[in-house]
Amino acid sequence: MAFNKRVKIKTILDESPIGTELTLMGWVRTKRSNKNVSFIALNDGSTITNYQIVADPNVISEDVLKKCATGACLKITGTVVESQGAGQSSELNAATIEILGEADPEKYPLQPKKHSLEFLREIAHLRMRTNTFGAVFRVRHALAYAVHKYFNDKGFFYIHTPIITASDAEGAGETFKVTTLDLKNPPLTEEGSIDFKQDFFERETNLTVSGQLEGELAAMALSEIYTFGPTFRAENSNTARHLAEFWMIEPEMAFYDAEDNQNLAEDFLKYVIQYALDNCAEDLKFLDQRLADEEKSKPQDQRSELGLLDKLKFVVENEFVRLTYTEAIDILRNSNPNKKKKFNYIIDQWGADLQSEHERYLVEKHFKKPVILTDYPKEIKSFYMRQNEDGKTVAAMDILFPGIGEIVGGSQREERLDVLTKKMEEMNIPQEEMWWYLDTRRFGSTPHAGFGLGFERMVLFVTGMGNIRDVIAFPRTPGNAEF
Amino acid sequence: MAFNKRVKIKTILDESPIGTELTLMGWVRTKRSNKNVSFIALNDGSTITNYQIVADPNVISEDVLKKCATGACLKITGTVVESQGAGQSSELNAATIEILGEADPEKYPLQPKKHSLEFLREIAHLRMRTNTFGAVFRVRHALAYAVHKYFNDKGFFYIHTPIITASDAEGAGETFKVTTLDLKNPPLTEEGSIDFKQDFFERETNLTVSGQLEGELAAMALSEIYTFGPTFRAENSNTARHLAEFWMIEPEMAFYDAEDNQNLAEDFLKYVIQYALDNCAEDLKFLDQRLADEEKSKPQDQRSELGLLDKLKFVVENEFVRLTYTEAIDILRNSNPNKKKKFNYIIDQWGADLQSEHERYLVEKHFKKPVILTDYPKEIKSFYMRQNEDGKTVAAMDILFPGIGEIVGGSQREERLDVLTKKMEEMNIPQEEMWWYLDTRRFGSTPHAGFGLGFERMVLFVTGMGNIRDVIAFPRTPGNAEF
Repeated sequence: MAFNKRVKIKTILDESPIGTELTLMGWVRTKRSNKNVSFIALNDGSTITNYQIVADPNVISEDVLKKCATGACLKITGTVVESQGAGQSSELNAATIEILGEADPEKYPLQPKKHSLEFLREIAHLRMRTNTFGAVFRVRHALAYAVHKYFNDKGFFYIHTPIITASDAEGAGETFKVTTLDLKNPPLTEEGSIDFKQDFFERETNLTVSGQLEGELAAMALSEIYTFGPTFRAENSNTARHLAEFWMIEPEMAFYDAEDNQNLAEDFLKYVIQYALDNCAEDLKFLDQRLADEEKSKPQDQRSELGLLDKLKFVVENEFVRLTYTEAIDILRNSNPNKKKKFNYIIDQWGADLQSEHERYLVEKHFKKPVILTDYPKEIKSFYMRQNEDGKTVAAMDILFPGIGEIVGGSQREERLDVLTKKMEEMNIPQEEMWWYLDTRRFGSTPHAGFGLGFERMVLFVTGMGNIRDVIAFPRTPGNAEF
Repeated sequence: MAFNKRVKIKTILDESPIGTELTLMGWVRTKRSNKNVSFIALNDGSTITNYQIVADPNVISEDVLKKCATGACLKITGTVVESQGAGQSSELNAATIEILGEADPEKYPLQPKKHSLEFLREIAHLRMRTNTFGAVFRVRHALAYAVHKYFNDKGFFYIHTPIITASDAEGAGETFKVTTLDLKNPPLTEEGSIDFKQDFFERETNLTVSGQLEGELAAMALSEIYTFGPTFRAENSNTARHLAEFWMIEPEMAFYDAEDNQNLAEDFLKYVIQYALDNCAEDLKFLDQRLADEEKSKPQDQRSELGLLDKLKFVVENEFVRLTYTEAIDILRNSNPNKKKKFNYIIDQWGADLQSEHERYLVEKHFKKPVILTDYPKEIKSFYMRQNEDGKTVAAMDILFPGIGEIVGGSQREERLDVLTKKMEEMNIPQEEMWWYLDTRRFGSTPHAGFGLGFERMVLFVTGMGNIRDVIAFPRTPGNAEF
């Protein structure tokens, strides 16, 4: 016998079916009682808005009402009536209340008061039951769906690139080893090194840092593809911006040059943000207020000029500034913080790698807009980026967002076999291991490009949360693999 | 200057814009020439259909035409004209052809002839350029998109559950270890065991075998969620049905009982298959023919009764058979292959685990329909499945598909804390490590259910491919982590 005959709170709010008898299920957020009536605020996760249940103590027994404590799970049947109170159009007059699961107020960690984000991180298994995290994870869902919808509607194909890989050619940082060997007594070769021939994959393997190289293989067959999968960095960075496990979106497109790539990335970012604005109005309104409240506790000069919603609309409505690295260096070199030596890293010559302080200056102070920085010195970028005519720069792009810094990194890829292999030689990248990558330049090569978006950075930006650990359900960071 | 001014072949075929001048880019599949004209079949991955380019040797130089070999990448401008030939409504009269990338016919592995699937697996970086694999990966994309669309439209939220995890409570099989320790000289504790306190996560970690337990946490806050992520099994199984790395879809729903779970799973499977039928008509037509050709090489009695398309339509149009394990045992015990001892495992008593041969008999011989098998003996199922009133069975379900066997496994979850902890004791599952899982039963517990779908099994079923290594871009199996 099917149990799930409930109506979701979101549906009731959308339709306000006055006079209808129906069943609601959800968790108690708060209860207020006097001797004549109890008001229960119920939430079922479908929306941030609680629905008001009106319980008459002549209808619902005292014992049941007592168990309707914060956190308890209820099944309520009743009739939708026009609400007497302000702030809601309807409410439910309870005919029956069944306690599906109790929550002992002495023990339940989520009481109706403000909990710190740090405390909630320790009970990540329960934090999605709060307004803030309910909103964050509904917005995260909407953003993920928007990513798939955008690419599907444009005719891109979703490719699942491998998570376990033997290639570390990108050299993007420290990797996690994957093995089935007995760590205590690993098999050794005659020379005394670990005998990976006896490991599961018969070679050394690690967790992927990027699906790009495999994505390129697919793009050279299907034209336009994207990946959306987990990637890993074993960096010992305990910051509000780093995760050991995070999700990346990496489109790769045959027949795109650097400008096509920039056009796509800008259009894509705006689409995804607009989708959240269109589909998460209530959650974003809540998060906007949350951020505004948080900003109030900061000194005046550290507050954002724009609120969350204003910032999102601003990004959607304005063209991103596009400028070359060389132009950026000129601006930075002549900037006040550079002249007054306020930057930690003074920009004194072309070729310097840009630090977060410089990116923030460009985006937040100078242009006050998202910035697409292009054509970086080849020495500070990856081997696969296409060399420009000048011989000094590559067709790279980084997209910088206010408060976030780099949200997208990409490039036109080097499609010329001779240029690519020369570069790999210079950078000591083993070509034998990369035979398959080079094959795409040997056979039917073509100009192509792509970029990567760190999904959690996008969720950070759209939700206005301050710590990346608060936008993924169960964050993995140094020392943390709980849940 | 933007490069990507091309029109996709799919668009031209859809719109047949006779008289329009446009640019095409893609890879040469074949070229036929006589002294008056060359016909080039071009493919750009947007569709399985090649587009015919007509090149007049008076317009296109002999040198260029010579380079238009199989696998070469071309940029062609020309005018769309009505086709003279059969089988296509329009073709392109080439005004200019630019060779974007050559493919030396002496070296290019993909020549216009039939290659074995085994050979193509060795060049997985190029196999997406073939008709078969182009079709498979376009269908795979459509299926993945359908999964997201189905759940989004129903108000489910997509949750990214962790890939690296310290919990192996499900005991679903061998796991891959994840570590940053020096394998050759791992740090040891005073007792001489590996000191995982010095590992990245300060504990032993492995790759997830399922996101279910974490998915349940989210469902107990957001009501209806799903996961879609990679999962891993370090089983040394070299079969056509096993991968070490594969993608799973795991919906979890608060307020669902076993029957709700079955209803959802059946509806979901039909939706996803119907989506592929609606959106991949040409690819499925090709794969239907491919399978029919392959079947012809089999002895008459081993051929499928239904072709691929017929089989897909049959699943969408018919109600799945639902029966209990106990009913299935009765059918199997009295079946001809059991009486005649044709089964490798004879069914002689209630409690026996069903083997693939039994599942196939039920689905392919007895019912000739997809089957939802329910209420298995508790001894052969996982600790988290809800115990039925009879005390002997649990509210499990497996969905069995023809040719595939188990495509979905799920259950109503045990929501009663006392029953669950008793079961964990019996099955030696450590409760301390699972404090967070048990918390959902301590605080606001509710009936809930969920299931898991192995995505590659679904792609196998819909594409009619015979080996699971042929439906994921870069398969990971024992000894294989190439690309």
